Amino acid sequence: MGRPISHVVGFDDAPFPRHRRGDVRVVGAVFAGTRLDGVLSARVRKDGANATRVLARTVSGSRFAGHLQAVLLQGIALGGFNVVDIHGLHRALGLPVLVVMRRLPDLQAIEAALRARVPGGARKWALVQAAGPVERAGRVYVQRAGLTLAAAERLLAATCLHGAVPEPLRTAHLIAGGIGTGESRGRV
Amino acid sequence: MGRPISHVVGFDDAPFPRHRRGDVRVVGAVFAGTRLDGVLSARVRKDGANATRVLARTVSGSRFAGHLQAVLLQGIALGGFNVVDIHGLHRALGLPVLVVMRRLPDLQAIEAALRARVPGGARKWALVQAAGPVERAGRVYVQRAGLTLAAAERLLAATCLHGAVPEPLRTAHLIAGGIGTGESRGRV
Repeated sequence: MGRPISHVVGFDDAPFPRHRRGDVRVVGAVFAGTRLDGVLSARVRKDGANATRVLARTVSGSRFAGHLQAVLLQGIALGGFNVVDIHGLHRALGLPVLVVMRRLPDLQAIEAALRARVPGGARKWALVQAAGPVERAGRVYVQRAGLTLAAAERLLAATCLHGAVPEPLRTAHLIAGGIGTGESRGRV
Repeated sequence: MGRPISHVVGFDDAPFPRHRRGDVRVVGAVFAGTRLDGVLSARVRKDGANATRVLARTVSGSRFAGHLQAVLLQGIALGGFNVVDIHGLHRALGLPVLVVMRRLPDLQAIEAALRARVPGGARKWALVQAAGPVERAGRVYVQRAGLTLAAAERLLAATCLHGAVPEPLRTAHLIAGGIGTGESRGRV
């Protein structure tokens, strides 16, 4: 599998009012090993369909593009139900994409919500399914594109420093929460 | 001096267009040891006079207030020439306040700029002077309120991880830069 993965970006979204339309901020924390190296910021449409495109553009347009070796996502959807096509993102960037979840998601509830009240819900549910089975990896659950489960476990081991969540995602969560509402709160 | 200082917040401001009026974002990175624990966000008036009040309110109103043991500032002014009264901030919070500068500031140039073109410039220059002499501490320069030079050096040693700048300030700088303009850049 070549040299260990050390340059990683983790994305999370900012909290947003449930009934507001519009854009939701997405924050990317770029790490070199356990050192924060930079911060990316973008916006995706709440419950929209542009998350894959926005993430691809945000990463490829950054000064870190040439160094990054993996993309971590805090869940497969940003800004509510703006579902990421992780295989499409993997192809667009040429980088492995790993969705990290602290808990096993309730896929039945997600499918029901998508079909009942989200524009393009059927297509988004297809993206969730196409992302592949939810697998246990270390202390979290993952979906993955462009890397084996073993590589995913190595990536988690290399990026976790405080707790079960990789440092780029933990940091992106704290930044997105703190910037959006004045103070970060809660757990990843 | 009691137990070592481990809970620290470092503030830096976001880049802003030189000729724009209005508010400038200020970001605080809260650390417990070398672990990022939270992010604070506030706004100060560009070239205004509210930085001390905003910092005091932002820290004391946060969930970290009870834990923090020191405040670090990336320079004595935020948002251009919004000079912080570090002794007033120290009194308001009951915490040591340390201004950290990578280079020796050109105080003559600062005085000239304040007096020539900043509202309330004479009063702001008095705040810079009241902050005390610029002293060498480790690999940086400091002004300080509420702690000795030896304590300042210990605080720097305890919070520096990558380079000469304490991790809370390095992180606040990356966040403020990345959130403001879409991508963080440059060095602290």
